[in-house]
Amino acid sequence: MGKCINHPDRETPYICMKHQIYLCEECLECRDPKLYCKYRSACPIWFMSKRKEGWDAEESKEAAAAVHTITFLPEEKTVSMPAGSTLLEAAQAAEVHVNASCSGKGSCGKCKLVVVSGNVTSLPTPLLTDGEKEKGYVLACQSTVTGDVSVQIPEEAIERKLKIAGMGQAATERLKVLVKEIDPMLKEIPLTLEPPTLEDSVSDLDRLNRGLKKTGCDVARLNVGIKVMRQLAEVVRQDNWNITASVIRRRCANEILEVRAGNGAQPSLGLAIDVGTTTIVVYLVDLVDGTIVAATAGHNRQADCGDDVINRIVCAEKNGVKKLSRMALATINSLIGEALDSAGTKADGIRNVVISGNTTMAHLLLQIEPRYIRRDPYIPTVSDFPILKAGEIGLKANPIAAVFVMPGPASYVGGDIVSGILYTGFHREEPVTLYIDIGTNGEIVLGNKEWLMTAACSAGPAFEGGGIRWGMRAEEGAIEKMTIDPETLVPDLVMVGNTPARGICGSGMIDLISELLKTGIVDQSGRFQKGLKNERVRDQGDEPAYVLVFADDTPMKEDIVFTASDLKNLIYSKGAVYAGFTTLLSEAGMDFSMVERMIITGGFGQYLNIEKAVTIGLLPDIDRSKFNYMGNASIVGAYMALLSTDYRQEAREICNNMTYIDFSSNPRYMDEFTSALFLPHTNLKSFPTVTAAA
Amino acid sequence: MGKCINHPDRETPYICMKHQIYLCEECLECRDPKLYCKYRSACPIWFMSKRKEGWDAEESKEAAAAVHTITFLPEEKTVSMPAGSTLLEAAQAAEVHVNASCSGKGSCGKCKLVVVSGNVTSLPTPLLTDGEKEKGYVLACQSTVTGDVSVQIPEEAIERKLKIAGMGQAATERLKVLVKEIDPMLKEIPLTLEPPTLEDSVSDLDRLNRGLKKTGCDVARLNVGIKVMRQLAEVVRQDNWNITASVIRRRCANEILEVRAGNGAQPSLGLAIDVGTTTIVVYLVDLVDGTIVAATAGHNRQADCGDDVINRIVCAEKNGVKKLSRMALATINSLIGEALDSAGTKADGIRNVVISGNTTMAHLLLQIEPRYIRRDPYIPTVSDFPILKAGEIGLKANPIAAVFVMPGPASYVGGDIVSGILYTGFHREEPVTLYIDIGTNGEIVLGNKEWLMTAACSAGPAFEGGGIRWGMRAEEGAIEKMTIDPETLVPDLVMVGNTPARGICGSGMIDLISELLKTGIVDQSGRFQKGLKNERVRDQGDEPAYVLVFADDTPMKEDIVFTASDLKNLIYSKGAVYAGFTTLLSEAGMDFSMVERMIITGGFGQYLNIEKAVTIGLLPDIDRSKFNYMGNASIVGAYMALLSTDYRQEAREICNNMTYIDFSSNPRYMDEFTSALFLPHTNLKSFPTVTAAA
Repeated sequence: MGKCINHPDRETPYICMKHQIYLCEECLECRDPKLYCKYRSACPIWFMSKRKEGWDAEESKEAAAAVHTITFLPEEKTVSMPAGSTLLEAAQAAEVHVNASCSGKGSCGKCKLVVVSGNVTSLPTPLLTDGEKEKGYVLACQSTVTGDVSVQIPEEAIERKLKIAGMGQAATERLKVLVKEIDPMLKEIPLTLEPPTLEDSVSDLDRLNRGLKKTGCDVARLNVGIKVMRQLAEVVRQDNWNITASVIRRRCANEILEVRAGNGAQPSLGLAIDVGTTTIVVYLVDLVDGTIVAATAGHNRQADCGDDVINRIVCAEKNGVKKLSRMALATINSLIGEALDSAGTKADGIRNVVISGNTTMAHLLLQIEPRYIRRDPYIPTVSDFPILKAGEIGLKANPIAAVFVMPGPASYVGGDIVSGILYTGFHREEPVTLYIDIGTNGEIVLGNKEWLMTAACSAGPAFEGGGIRWGMRAEEGAIEKMTIDPETLVPDLVMVGNTPARGICGSGMIDLISELLKTGIVDQSGRFQKGLKNERVRDQGDEPAYVLVFADDTPMKEDIVFTASDLKNLIYSKGAVYAGFTTLLSEAGMDFSMVERMIITGGFGQYLNIEKAVTIGLLPDIDRSKFNYMGNASIVGAYMALLSTDYRQEAREICNNMTYIDFSSNPRYMDEFTSALFLPHTNLKSFPTVTAAA
Repeated sequence: MGKCINHPDRETPYICMKHQIYLCEECLECRDPKLYCKYRSACPIWFMSKRKEGWDAEESKEAAAAVHTITFLPEEKTVSMPAGSTLLEAAQAAEVHVNASCSGKGSCGKCKLVVVSGNVTSLPTPLLTDGEKEKGYVLACQSTVTGDVSVQIPEEAIERKLKIAGMGQAATERLKVLVKEIDPMLKEIPLTLEPPTLEDSVSDLDRLNRGLKKTGCDVARLNVGIKVMRQLAEVVRQDNWNITASVIRRRCANEILEVRAGNGAQPSLGLAIDVGTTTIVVYLVDLVDGTIVAATAGHNRQADCGDDVINRIVCAEKNGVKKLSRMALATINSLIGEALDSAGTKADGIRNVVISGNTTMAHLLLQIEPRYIRRDPYIPTVSDFPILKAGEIGLKANPIAAVFVMPGPASYVGGDIVSGILYTGFHREEPVTLYIDIGTNGEIVLGNKEWLMTAACSAGPAFEGGGIRWGMRAEEGAIEKMTIDPETLVPDLVMVGNTPARGICGSGMIDLISELLKTGIVDQSGRFQKGLKNERVRDQGDEPAYVLVFADDTPMKEDIVFTASDLKNLIYSKGAVYAGFTTLLSEAGMDFSMVERMIITGGFGQYLNIEKAVTIGLLPDIDRSKFNYMGNASIVGAYMALLSTDYRQEAREICNNMTYIDFSSNPRYMDEFTSALFLPHTNLKSFPTVTAAA
């Protein structure tokens, strides 16, 4: 135990064995560059001791005696680590990216490495196939260093990163056509200035402005800070009056944020970030041509504080908004780091960022007080955010990078929905459209190019896997599509990534309920049929359950089941969503017959089955050709806004044009909800095709 | 000796005996709040040990044993100090303002206090009269504490502060009429917002913008930073939606800098600061009605680095621009502190600042690289400064206070001249005017409302007392007016403040040379007449000199003399100025006959004698009614710009409309200069009235 170097009043067991400095838990966890980065960069083995809780300085000194060399191929990066370090720790010390979704717990199986020479001691794991083991595969987090070793990062590990966020080459090309002219907020403007003479002796700053004016910059509304004035004289003279100016364009005014010597081309990167309550997705974009050079996705670390926004706000009230901000930043910055590694570039080149998230996520990330979001009359502190700088909010990017946060019209309808509308584009068209984003919160928008109404219903996290025993998001191993044989009750499953099943995601659950209903395993009120003689239906604890996968066929060696409680949670969720549709329509004086198009977005897998979603009463029983499933629309809207001023402006207009209807105090909503707690609905007349099929 | 708490690599003898912390010299001197303020405020006796160079921690611990109580009347402020502390140190620790122009060297005699009870040990000083000594007067810096003591600050010490800057009640009233409508950059806007309801649920920030819009604020171009967003939710709810917003208006955009709970009236203060190479003047202004509530003036501490701007730049190149900035800030902040004390208010209330200074002074103060100012082709880094914040540059004011720095057209014609023109107003009128500011640098402007030409000549610091044996600025004890009896050669002297003579200022020197010429003590080439049998004319070292005051009549008990070298310096100075006139006129294709008005500003005393200035050839021999002496015009222009947006805009227009003529490469200027090194001039025809009188 020793005193934290940042907080001398705190005793901590975490010591860096190389530098003999102590850091407290907060410093270890936080990504505040003041507290963290200086040690993180100076001290690549700090996490070593973090793992070994309870070590004291003396023990760690001894342990540090044996040191081995680990070489990472194909990059040939080398690092020295004390004996007992894991390969994952070594990779982090060497700044080699190894995917570690479960943070080294050994449960995700993603940190695969191939041992090329030397030996490591590995704990047994079911997450490697026998074939892999023969080829020398190990899990980095489960393997400790006992001597010098060379390891190779498997090719597929590098490729998978793009797959996770669904971003193949084709998808990239499809998105690129959405943007006509690339026009980021922060522009890098190369300039060659005329050197001064006695006859032309204007100040350096005036000369810079003159150069900028020639490029079409509105210098009359151009601000400049003291930092640039202090660096200007040297910078302009360093490379013979060739410079590059970083100019940010804000609605209210432009500003020169930085000048540097030389005017050669520099990497110009941008980030589109979708900060979901459950999942965070990051696109790293080349701003020269709009190519998505890397895409990463991961769980929002705030999940430790609860699944939904209300729990997050409660947690922020208790522990301070800074803590929640740090958690989200930890995930975001780690995803940015992965994306940068995968693209082989540096954070310094990132100079534009667009963040799309619901109102609570935006508040928490920016450390803005969220507590009034959950208190009547439900007021966000900010809905339309000014352009910020990455350094102000702690993003892993150039500190001067311009950050646009998608505006959100209300406490429970946020920038992610505006972003989604921007992408789907129905606000530019005639047809009356019903838009639903099914995530932890179910946000609904109704309207067309003339008007937009919006509301939110608490769908709960069930469709994203929360509160469901074997629920998970649509990632590798998730059952995303299924049928049940009506005779044998044996399921036919399709998993994301075609790997052994590890759980079930939203689209899989919709299929499942529909199949349970169709095969009679459950009835329309959601009750399991009693006395069914089949090994697939059995009691799990004190409630009935359907067995999706038997233990032997899973990496975890446990049955994957779906219980009566899981079903009840899902019925509540789907009921909340359907009640949202009917209530919003009646507020507009409309019914489903007047809806010309229905757009569905959200965290489902690729295989959302519309027919089955209607069967269970999640979606209305209307002409199936009206349905469009558009996946994660929020990240695509963010990508569009990253590249185009017009789209950023359009996002603001969408936000301003939305009329928010509050359901919390709406008695009609409660009635509609109660009617919808049935499969598909208590009013079967509104589901004619389902009734006809039964 | 111990390690500086800020710089553990530095050994330093300066220790605070109370807190036992060490600070290195840089930390003691600097005014960087990060390094200094936290100890300055936590540790009011640190300077104690600074004085006692060489003390080590042990000695100081012993010395700290005896502690006495010092009470300052009339404020009844009390402080405990170790035995051996001076009263000046005690005053600083108690935060009682005592004027200490010489920084405690015992040479200025300004830190007078009256001992009311108890005893102090005082060193003998000639700067107190016998009458004063009988009344219990002591010099605070020359008196050490030996027991508990009560001291009173003399009434006249408080009053003198205003006199130094020439700011009586009448002057204040005269300046107030210059400004029609008070309109500062940073406005405090009191607001009462409508509390939100379910029907009116816009965000807190939108609500704030709505409130601001009602007051006429252009919210479409209003920026807001992350700090305000983070404080907003609590602030609006703290006093039932009554708040005050601090909004800054910049050319390019407005910005909300701060919000606070409550909307009652707050002190709204401003600073006008004239940063001269030699002297700094500060006006503390009540922005409600424009009253100057305090005015202070003092020597620019940068003088340690040389008298003129070239030496300052050289010093900045050697020691870093930060050091020079700190020196200027030390003076400015101490003058602001004096002004605040005298007005009985706090720095927090200062929310607007205007700084007027020459180009080098502005660069040094803002830590902007000045080195290219002195290198061909003489380029300043910045000439038109954006509005800055006080916290960015380290001014003793509210950190969000808006700072307008007067723009300057060239490296050697700066914002002080623009400020002076703004006040004198000839740029708004028809008559062709020749404007000269005689300070360390002689800046000349020629023009009227149609056109403005400007140039600078190196007058040197002679007229401000620099390089003259007994030269001083126009402060207490300076001979500012004089005649010499042609028979006895005995002078008749008028001193500033009617106190015993301590030196001679610019106006006094002009009188003196004219009288020396008239009485034949010196001839037209500036040579002392040989063989004069008079006690007033004698050799000083190896050169002749005129004795102004004999030692017995001075507080210093030394002869005040004016030597041949002093005369030569002054002839160079006046020649440089006069050559500036003639060169600039000929560049404009004009001569003196076409000048309809002549405005003189600069650091002279109240009694600049135009007739005598013509006699010595400093000013041209034109109709005397054309001359106007307008004192320190720079500070008045700063005062005007502090109060009015129109005047700030006008200052920018003046700057943009000036055509700068460079004399450094102008052969005509060298010729004109050589011709002017004579009393009054080699070409006597251009001085007809002087020739006629002779």
